[in-house]
Amino acid sequence: MERRESIEEGARSERREIILRAAAKVFARSGYFNAKVSDVARTAGIADGTVYLYFRNKEDLLTSIFSWAMGEFMSRAKSEIPVIIDPREKLRRFAQLHFSLIERERDVAIVFQIELRHSTKFMEKFSTTYLADYLQVLREIVEAGQREGKFRSQLNPKLVAKVMFGILDGMATNWVLSRKSNSLVMMVDPMIDIFLNGVTTSNA
Amino acid sequence: MERRESIEEGARSERREIILRAAAKVFARSGYFNAKVSDVARTAGIADGTVYLYFRNKEDLLTSIFSWAMGEFMSRAKSEIPVIIDPREKLRRFAQLHFSLIERERDVAIVFQIELRHSTKFMEKFSTTYLADYLQVLREIVEAGQREGKFRSQLNPKLVAKVMFGILDGMATNWVLSRKSNSLVMMVDPMIDIFLNGVTTSNA
Repeated sequence: MERRESIEEGARSERREIILRAAAKVFARSGYFNAKVSDVARTAGIADGTVYLYFRNKEDLLTSIFSWAMGEFMSRAKSEIPVIIDPREKLRRFAQLHFSLIERERDVAIVFQIELRHSTKFMEKFSTTYLADYLQVLREIVEAGQREGKFRSQLNPKLVAKVMFGILDGMATNWVLSRKSNSLVMMVDPMIDIFLNGVTTSNA
Repeated sequence: MERRESIEEGARSERREIILRAAAKVFARSGYFNAKVSDVARTAGIADGTVYLYFRNKEDLLTSIFSWAMGEFMSRAKSEIPVIIDPREKLRRFAQLHFSLIERERDVAIVFQIELRHSTKFMEKFSTTYLADYLQVLREIVEAGQREGKFRSQLNPKLVAKVMFGILDGMATNWVLSRKSNSLVMMVDPMIDIFLNGVTTSNA
């Protein structure tokens, strides 16, 4: 009985993901405000009504896309980063995880980096939930680096986290906007080198 | 005679700028592709035909907005930066000039940071002209800093210029997309501090 339930749950969660991917594709192409739930259903290859077995409405689809994508990112970050010892390598891995998610989920990224920035309501919700969580992970890396004497003690860890987010998020937006397919992940190493070591010599 | 010509030229260039500002406003609000030259004329408070005394068509308006904004930026950068001696302060001033242009000309910035990124044709033209010029200025600052022993000699000046552009351009795009009015220029100092000095201590 239990086994059967978990198979059903697995099928349900798979179907949910199919609908979310279809929604991201539709929102990315037509824009969130123009998109219709029926377009999402058609793209997912299911009946309109089926979407409503999983999601309340279009806004619920949007919110769920982000819970899903950010959930994937945060769970990877929270499982992979604590295993790394060097705080410099923690920052590098964090940037790699961020950029590889953007590259892998381009439709979600289009919706997130462009469409949603116009929505004050969404951005406020994002800032107090996922973004707060994201900045917290970065801040803890910086604080650990400072305790170990590896990062400059006079830096404000909150501000460093904000600058790092500003850099990564900005580069991600521009990657999404440019139609070229040069890799975003490839920019991590030169960017992190400067972020860690700066451009000046130590005696400048 | 000469004096009269220069007054006429001054009036012409002023009228041109009024039309360009109107065009930026219209493009920023309606999107370039939806905008009509007649909307630009109405916003500028002139007859449709008058626009055509100055510009060939909508595309010419778009191209001219950028020649104008980038011209302003490059001429300020090229006059102000050579006067500064410390290459670190040159980089800071460059970032300040970039961000203050974006803040001052928000309509132009909306068109440039968002609308145009979709246009492969425009972006290709931009990359080989203004962007090449912009990167060149940055590269020369980095090379000068390296010659003076102030910037790390192992850095590739071209790559540093590209990373710096990536950071500034990305932060500018996100500032334009967010409707909040927190200052972009205020981010220069924390960002430049990290860009110059990195987050690590010199003995890390």
